[in-house]
Amino acid sequence: MNEPAKAVVLISGGLDSATVLAIAKNRGYGCYGLSFDYGQRHRLELEAAGRIAEKAECLDHRVMHIDLAGIGGSALTSDAEVPKDGPHRQGEQGIPVTYVPARNTIFLSCALAWAEVLGACDIFIGVNAVDYSGYPDCRPEYIRAYEKTANLATRASVEDGRKIRIHAPLMRLRKADIIRQGLTLGVDYALTRSCYDPTPEGLACGACDACRLRKKGFAEAGSKDPIPYASD
Amino acid sequence: MNEPAKAVVLISGGLDSATVLAIAKNRGYGCYGLSFDYGQRHRLELEAAGRIAEKAECLDHRVMHIDLAGIGGSALTSDAEVPKDGPHRQGEQGIPVTYVPARNTIFLSCALAWAEVLGACDIFIGVNAVDYSGYPDCRPEYIRAYEKTANLATRASVEDGRKIRIHAPLMRLRKADIIRQGLTLGVDYALTRSCYDPTPEGLACGACDACRLRKKGFAEAGSKDPIPYASD
Repeated sequence: MNEPAKAVVLISGGLDSATVLAIAKNRGYGCYGLSFDYGQRHRLELEAAGRIAEKAECLDHRVMHIDLAGIGGSALTSDAEVPKDGPHRQGEQGIPVTYVPARNTIFLSCALAWAEVLGACDIFIGVNAVDYSGYPDCRPEYIRAYEKTANLATRASVEDGRKIRIHAPLMRLRKADIIRQGLTLGVDYALTRSCYDPTPEGLACGACDACRLRKKGFAEAGSKDPIPYASD
Repeated sequence: MNEPAKAVVLISGGLDSATVLAIAKNRGYGCYGLSFDYGQRHRLELEAAGRIAEKAECLDHRVMHIDLAGIGGSALTSDAEVPKDGPHRQGEQGIPVTYVPARNTIFLSCALAWAEVLGACDIFIGVNAVDYSGYPDCRPEYIRAYEKTANLATRASVEDGRKIRIHAPLMRLRKADIIRQGLTLGVDYALTRSCYDPTPEGLACGACDACRLRKKGFAEAGSKDPIPYASD
């Protein structure tokens, strides 16, 4: 019997990437979870990522350290205040202050490196162009361009014509549809964390953009969000 | 008087990137040096990078930590033996064992993140398609694809149509020509380190691929290499 094809799956600890992992597994891949400690203010999501990877029986799960906080530039990695109770944007075209510069490009590049070491040709990422329309690195044209770069960057294409594929299966789904798909695949959303600004006890604030989007998604999906909120 | 345009310059501590930094400075950029601690076996090159940045009056110099060694895959970040006395290749198309998976993609992505924070549109990298023909991420088509991705990935193009440019001024130069250009611009090559496998005292081995290429370059340029070698 052949071994299943390997895939590197980016796992943030949130709802989207937990769903992507379930999708990759459902498609028959042997999954290698990759998470990042990049100076984000809440370590809870890394703990969540570990639990999600374990529950989904990832063949391996690594946490790479990258000091993005050292170069600054985002409310998620600096002392800037996380916006509450409504979308907060900066710049004419409305990129959210929680945008981390070039984050997905860095994450995909590290995933690409690991994929190359593993001999994997498939990388899964939970980007979404519907709910995160302000993030430039969540657009389909960005993912396509990255995939092309990845195929020029690596040994796979040069040595034996294998093609690297970047899978973004949530790209065009609304949050409620993501949740419905995850529930069908048996994702345990109690393990996931979405809040940008949890309480010291680890409770989701219920008010930041990420909490609002999540709560709205569960409501529209007609399902109860299994995590507790500080505002409950 | 206007401030000079800012550029992020990748500085490895080697001969090529020291030359690139001099070229960027000569073109009038205010230079921000970026180096990486990625688990490479010799820390000497990071010390060299710091001296090179200081000598060239970089406006800032940062060292980012990324644990590439944790995912393995290269003689430069693992316990694999560094090849001596001739080019050592693996795979049908001859990619050197010293190739680090997706390294330039990761480095460019971190440079892109810092450029975005700084408001810089220009990134300089010392890749070269002549002497490193076996490295997929040193080819001109790779750099062009990365530049396109970078422009889709970031705020600059979305918000105000600024264009990110990836400069690879050494791309088509032979080592001797790189050295000649650097000498013209006043690069102090005594500060640079190229060896893949220096002695415990910090002397270049003189035998690895990087040393051989460097010695040949100086010889062809008709100039004396100012660094000492263990083999001298």
